[in-house]
Amino acid sequence: MLKLFYAPHTCSMASHIALEEAGADYEAVRVDFRSNGQRAPEYLAINPKGRVPALVTERGVLTETPAILAYIAQSIPRARLAPLDDPFAFARVQAFNSYLCSTVHVAHAHRMRGQRWTDDPAAIEALKLKVPQNMSDCMDLIERDMLAGPWVMGEAYTICDPYLFTISQWLKGDGVDAARFPKVNDHMHRMAERPAVKKVLAVVKS
Amino acid sequence: MLKLFYAPHTCSMASHIALEEAGADYEAVRVDFRSNGQRAPEYLAINPKGRVPALVTERGVLTETPAILAYIAQSIPRARLAPLDDPFAFARVQAFNSYLCSTVHVAHAHRMRGQRWTDDPAAIEALKLKVPQNMSDCMDLIERDMLAGPWVMGEAYTICDPYLFTISQWLKGDGVDAARFPKVNDHMHRMAERPAVKKVLAVVKS
Repeated sequence: MLKLFYAPHTCSMASHIALEEAGADYEAVRVDFRSNGQRAPEYLAINPKGRVPALVTERGVLTETPAILAYIAQSIPRARLAPLDDPFAFARVQAFNSYLCSTVHVAHAHRMRGQRWTDDPAAIEALKLKVPQNMSDCMDLIERDMLAGPWVMGEAYTICDPYLFTISQWLKGDGVDAARFPKVNDHMHRMAERPAVKKVLAVVKS
Repeated sequence: MLKLFYAPHTCSMASHIALEEAGADYEAVRVDFRSNGQRAPEYLAINPKGRVPALVTERGVLTETPAILAYIAQSIPRARLAPLDDPFAFARVQAFNSYLCSTVHVAHAHRMRGQRWTDDPAAIEALKLKVPQNMSDCMDLIERDMLAGPWVMGEAYTICDPYLFTISQWLKGDGVDAARFPKVNDHMHRMAERPAVKKVLAVVKS
């Protein structure tokens, strides 16, 4: 059985939803960020990065959201969560998820995790100011050039969808009105109606 | 024929080396960052992100280094640049590359691209100060937990290797002595001996 280490309000929700959508045999284990559980020795033994998500498989631990999402899609092909037999279409899926992890998630992290990049309290405060603009710019690009609709890749629901949904949940806190981006907003609401998403939200918010 | 848009000293070198290693039929086209060519309308029509790399294929444009690298491996399987038939092993490759793009490259970018995250000149200067520490921490994790040796994934050379090599080239400028990380340093020197790497370095530095 797979074991997913997750924390509320983090990008681990993308993998959590994908596992649920895939009908995977998995257990979700919460890491308590309030008590700094991600830095506890027993968790660092699982994931030395001290982050979530971490997916424990029978062959070892996987980290990094885009890698875990592609693993779920490839190892449970019946779920049809990615175009596995088409390298170009698969690369488009990966390019989307890579943009989310390396640019959009990073833009968001400058609001609450500025200490990753500076120890200067004034600079940490300064970093927060540009987050609404950066997140808006990212959503604008996604709206204009990436989100085909109704799902990210078009008619087929893929591993891009739970990842975009996860990050969409952060927009309000980042000072961005999702309604300014009709396709992103529509996607967020359509995702929220899926049984897998409802189930994961209930677990994460419990 | 594939067309790779690249710029010297950027992460596009990883895709450039992978194309060369794969024996791909490709053309490398330089984007002149000194004249802000990445923001020119004709380039933005290819890649609206205004970044490199961008790989033009007969089916469309691909961006994001991890996606391009996996595309090269999957579309030219004879080159054996990734464990394509093993979802877990493939996910380990992807987790490594995802870490490089979302954490290591981002840590590096705070030295020269701080304006991405703040408009405050003092904060931009402050961000530079933590780059040596952050890059050292990343290399320490890679040295300790990720780089199996002789190549990143062990005996098999994969798409992880040109990406790590590309980022290793930045360490000196980031104030990090690669010699402190014997496996990373050894990897960098072993990579530099490969004909594909020599060829790409000659093109990029010309």
